[in-house]
Amino acid sequence: MGTENGRNVTIAMIARLAGVSVPTVSRVINGRSDVAPDTRERVEALLNRHGYRRRSPARRTDAALIDLVFNDLDSPWAVEIIRGVEDVGQTSGVGTVVSAIHWRISSAKQWLDNMRTRSTEGIIFVTSMVNPPLQAELRRLHLPVVIIDPAGVDPQESPTIGATNWAGALSANQYLINLGHRRIGFIAGPPHLMCSRARMDGYRAALGAADIPIDDALIRPGNFYHEAGFSAGTQLLALPDPPTAIFASSDQMALGVYEAVRKRGLRVPDDVSVVGFDDLPEVRWCSPPLTTVRQPLAEMGMLAARTVLRLAGGEKTESPRVELATELIVRDSAAPPRASSSGRPRS
Amino acid sequence: MGTENGRNVTIAMIARLAGVSVPTVSRVINGRSDVAPDTRERVEALLNRHGYRRRSPARRTDAALIDLVFNDLDSPWAVEIIRGVEDVGQTSGVGTVVSAIHWRISSAKQWLDNMRTRSTEGIIFVTSMVNPPLQAELRRLHLPVVIIDPAGVDPQESPTIGATNWAGALSANQYLINLGHRRIGFIAGPPHLMCSRARMDGYRAALGAADIPIDDALIRPGNFYHEAGFSAGTQLLALPDPPTAIFASSDQMALGVYEAVRKRGLRVPDDVSVVGFDDLPEVRWCSPPLTTVRQPLAEMGMLAARTVLRLAGGEKTESPRVELATELIVRDSAAPPRASSSGRPRS
Repeated sequence: MGTENGRNVTIAMIARLAGVSVPTVSRVINGRSDVAPDTRERVEALLNRHGYRRRSPARRTDAALIDLVFNDLDSPWAVEIIRGVEDVGQTSGVGTVVSAIHWRISSAKQWLDNMRTRSTEGIIFVTSMVNPPLQAELRRLHLPVVIIDPAGVDPQESPTIGATNWAGALSANQYLINLGHRRIGFIAGPPHLMCSRARMDGYRAALGAADIPIDDALIRPGNFYHEAGFSAGTQLLALPDPPTAIFASSDQMALGVYEAVRKRGLRVPDDVSVVGFDDLPEVRWCSPPLTTVRQPLAEMGMLAARTVLRLAGGEKTESPRVELATELIVRDSAAPPRASSSGRPRS
Repeated sequence: MGTENGRNVTIAMIARLAGVSVPTVSRVINGRSDVAPDTRERVEALLNRHGYRRRSPARRTDAALIDLVFNDLDSPWAVEIIRGVEDVGQTSGVGTVVSAIHWRISSAKQWLDNMRTRSTEGIIFVTSMVNPPLQAELRRLHLPVVIIDPAGVDPQESPTIGATNWAGALSANQYLINLGHRRIGFIAGPPHLMCSRARMDGYRAALGAADIPIDDALIRPGNFYHEAGFSAGTQLLALPDPPTAIFASSDQMALGVYEAVRKRGLRVPDDVSVVGFDDLPEVRWCSPPLTTVRQPLAEMGMLAARTVLRLAGGEKTESPRVELATELIVRDSAAPPRASSSGRPRS
């Protein structure tokens, strides 16, 4: 049972419109194979047109569950998001089922098979892409889906929750400029992700607003991982006129820069300032503690859980995409630049 | 339905032994209140004596679930364990429900209420202590329980899975001794945890075996957290005859020592060697990458999941406690000591 402009969309109504029996509609909804293809198609079309949403049987016979699906459980990120979803779930009496599908179709299919048999209220994906076969399958199940998409790709069929990447990068670079830096290195994220572009554009905007010309030699490609930060940092520090500060598009890359600085016999922030992006829990324990742009991952998880439960209850979302604010967390990895021939401190 | 030495323990059998009806036994098992107290007591005693285990209804009517319960989802640890449990769960068609009970009775009760209504196969606790009221409640539910207990407390009612703490600390300190260190500082874990004692005893054993006298000034209390490592490290470095190496009982404390070293204007490992314990995912990205004792957290999660599923299937475990081997992971944070008046390198 779902709602259409506040009116209930029932299986009986769909059956009447399709000219079939109620059990036939149920069979279509449950993905059974004993329905004629053209009947299935007609019923599917009506279910979609009227925005039918399955009322989870959980409401009646079993405890409710939310499915939280990651590509991989290999990042300290994951635990932050789990924490947010679990917190809202537990308060609502809803269990959080955590799965990893490892970017593999076979693994996604196994998860789907398992998930189909439990009474899930809805699904939260943590990913920058839900592959089309999976998406088609999910559409057939008529379960609410919310995507936590820190990367912020193109609009999806389902509501997505992200963070303000551009504004975060802007604030980090304005902070460095205010400390007196004028040669600021930038290490990018993977070019196919919109969040990478947004962070680079925030960097460019901060420099532009301060009338600092963009020097392409100071912009390096990256992929969010430590090794890329290390190699980009090593290259930047080896420039004839090296940057006095480096803004990395992820914390892991910022820690790679730390290692490049150490290997060169230099110190953060005495010789080079470093700012990251994410605020992973452990960067407060780096040496020195990392100044970084905080992505509110737990809050994104909480909002996703609330949204999926609202959708499961037949409500609608206000907006197809919500971005939560990032915040610059100032710790000890950035300082005014040393006075040198390459630039004059302004702080 | 469960097994007793390979023989099935059925509700009918318990009913016969207790002289009550089968529905009465079912009511006791399901925690219903409409059973006379003395009947309940008699039935409970028989269920316990014969090792009755509830066969999850999940097997028949619904997808199976495992409940994985943390005290807090605030540690990078958590994601490693989740990864292991989820991996085994997904392969077995079992969903992993992750919960946090925040050390609070109210929160544990809420989790219990939610859990009771879902078809869980069994429960994995990640904790060094399951509080007695919770334990009593779990006993009444006759669900398999496995405890992942990195701390290794006293024997529990349920099978526990841990790591070889003593052997891990021994190998770390033997490694430092082989590098030539003779003044090795030690930062302890919380004194009420057995794993803290095991790690300290491993430290003492390594020194003893190398005929290095124990200097109590080099042994500092700690609690596994970063701040304790920082303050103990600061104190150790301020000693008139400071250690040339520091073994911290956790990675977070080892990173606290890094910060103490940095604040003193010194360098790891040039001036002080540092070795940790845990091998959290992020310590490979420290600067310098941390040499540490690896606890196989994902593998502990995998074993816990396999054990709980075997118990749910009516099998027994071989041993009430299993410890998985730790392993010294050598990275860049330890080096031979500088030649100085305080000791002569032997490497």
